[in-house]
Amino acid sequence: MVAREILEKFRGKNVLITGGLGFIGSNLAIALAKVDANITILDAMIKGHGGNQFNIEPIRDKVLVKIGDVRDQATMEDMVTGKDFIFHLAGQNDHVISLTDPFPDIDINIKGSAMLLFCCKNRNPETRLVYTGTRGEYGAVKQLPVTEEAPINPRGIYELSSLTAQQLFKIYHDNHGVRSVTLRLTNIYGERAQMNHDRFGVVNWFIRLALDNQSIKVFGDGLLLRDFLYVQDAVDAIIMAAASEKAYGELFNLGGDTPLNFKELAGAIVKTTGSGNWEYAPFSAERAKLEPGDFYSDISKINRIVGWKPAYNIMQGLANTIDYYKKYREQYW
Amino acid sequence: MVAREILEKFRGKNVLITGGLGFIGSNLAIALAKVDANITILDAMIKGHGGNQFNIEPIRDKVLVKIGDVRDQATMEDMVTGKDFIFHLAGQNDHVISLTDPFPDIDINIKGSAMLLFCCKNRNPETRLVYTGTRGEYGAVKQLPVTEEAPINPRGIYELSSLTAQQLFKIYHDNHGVRSVTLRLTNIYGERAQMNHDRFGVVNWFIRLALDNQSIKVFGDGLLLRDFLYVQDAVDAIIMAAASEKAYGELFNLGGDTPLNFKELAGAIVKTTGSGNWEYAPFSAERAKLEPGDFYSDISKINRIVGWKPAYNIMQGLANTIDYYKKYREQYW
Repeated sequence: MVAREILEKFRGKNVLITGGLGFIGSNLAIALAKVDANITILDAMIKGHGGNQFNIEPIRDKVLVKIGDVRDQATMEDMVTGKDFIFHLAGQNDHVISLTDPFPDIDINIKGSAMLLFCCKNRNPETRLVYTGTRGEYGAVKQLPVTEEAPINPRGIYELSSLTAQQLFKIYHDNHGVRSVTLRLTNIYGERAQMNHDRFGVVNWFIRLALDNQSIKVFGDGLLLRDFLYVQDAVDAIIMAAASEKAYGELFNLGGDTPLNFKELAGAIVKTTGSGNWEYAPFSAERAKLEPGDFYSDISKINRIVGWKPAYNIMQGLANTIDYYKKYREQYW
Repeated sequence: MVAREILEKFRGKNVLITGGLGFIGSNLAIALAKVDANITILDAMIKGHGGNQFNIEPIRDKVLVKIGDVRDQATMEDMVTGKDFIFHLAGQNDHVISLTDPFPDIDINIKGSAMLLFCCKNRNPETRLVYTGTRGEYGAVKQLPVTEEAPINPRGIYELSSLTAQQLFKIYHDNHGVRSVTLRLTNIYGERAQMNHDRFGVVNWFIRLALDNQSIKVFGDGLLLRDFLYVQDAVDAIIMAAASEKAYGELFNLGGDTPLNFKELAGAIVKTTGSGNWEYAPFSAERAKLEPGDFYSDISKINRIVGWKPAYNIMQGLANTIDYYKKYREQYW
């Protein structure tokens, strides 16, 4: 949980959230609205991604929403001006696209991040940025749990584009005086994620299948380990990192504290929803190639420097998530 | 030296050299023309870079020159078709540009490399590629000499763009079946480099100053160590790597075998030209920030796997280079 005095640091502050109509961005906006931050959301509403106007329903009157693209210089010059904090959550996150077309990742994730940083440097060098990348930046795991010192060997172009964006933030921090914190997020799940396809967000997809009384496919022997993290925990970490002076210039893993295998995950979801079932299925050749094996992150660095650790266990997180989608199913199906 | 039987592997082969009117590319073309490879050169002749029609004067009748841009899909689809080997030497190499504008590096180095690889995958997946990156991909040095296992922390956007391009080649090799070898080049010097500014190619710039009877500025105490490599050695390494089955999928450092400091370098240049002089000068603040300290690379991996090692010592390389520019000064000044 974010301590009240930390959240209070955002009271009345001008905050920009790119990708703010999406999964993590909208939950972040809702959290910051509690202390009346002046929130601007920028979202390109790219088809197949998480942008959904319903996500900000609880704070509709408290935020300014601008539909626009991070790659557009005029938009970004306007957007960054006067902002105290900028949370960069906009991105192309579809692994499958990059297998056939590398350019959306390069354009949106690399060039879009460069545009944001370029505009901050020129128009608002005093701002503070948080960038959320992916655990996929590490690629093949040599040692578990994975620390921030692990070698980086991204396996696909999506993962590489996220890594390059992270390195752009680091270079702007170190050499151009634009402060930022960068994070590598593990598998985040929770309310307000898109539920229309399985190309990202495996936990939420399992939840959809169970709620639809369908069968969840658990690949291989179901023993692959992951650290799943509830979105409210992720939001707390993002806020605490932005509020911490010591965090700037640092890279942090952002993951769960208890690895779980896919068999256990599927079982917990079926049990909590009270519908659906799960079964074993073989890996597709393509998936097997990109599958990095067990992954769980070492989150001791963010705990040590920022003071964050997860507050929810998986059963609490799943229960909240499933309640949400039972209630607002028609907004997401 | 490339053994004759290795060079013979390129006889009659269809070869594309991007950036082939530039420094390393033109020397590579001249070497491959000796065994009558069918050489196509693609060069965008970007202002301030190394493209110079005079560079290929000795082989003018033996090569096809196309002026075009690696970022252009139609151009690249045409260029890659039917090529047995593709040497990707085109790039934005000006460190200074990226300090104020990140987009040329992202567009030319990242997106241009992606375009090349994308077109190879779709039109000619059987081709073999060689990519020449920079030692700058490593960034701050933690241990000398620098091996291919060293951590990568590029300090500037130019260096980052080169790293991202290298990782694109690796991903296309590992996951998309497009074979490549990637190299990280140290300070290369020699004939056919541009001589109009000091934004890249420090050895050649020192040579120009000496030939103009001017004073070479040696920054700091002049004791910074570098491994300088003569371009004919670099060309041999590139050819041998392309010819080696075992090299595909690998990353190699490409550097000299004897580190030298800038004081020694300047002294050797002044002595060999017989004109000019050298003096100490303080680092500018900007240069000090991007200056990674001593750097020399461990070249044992390319020696072990490919069998290459430098054939020229610095005095021989400098003598050849200085002779060349004395003879063809009007083509480069």
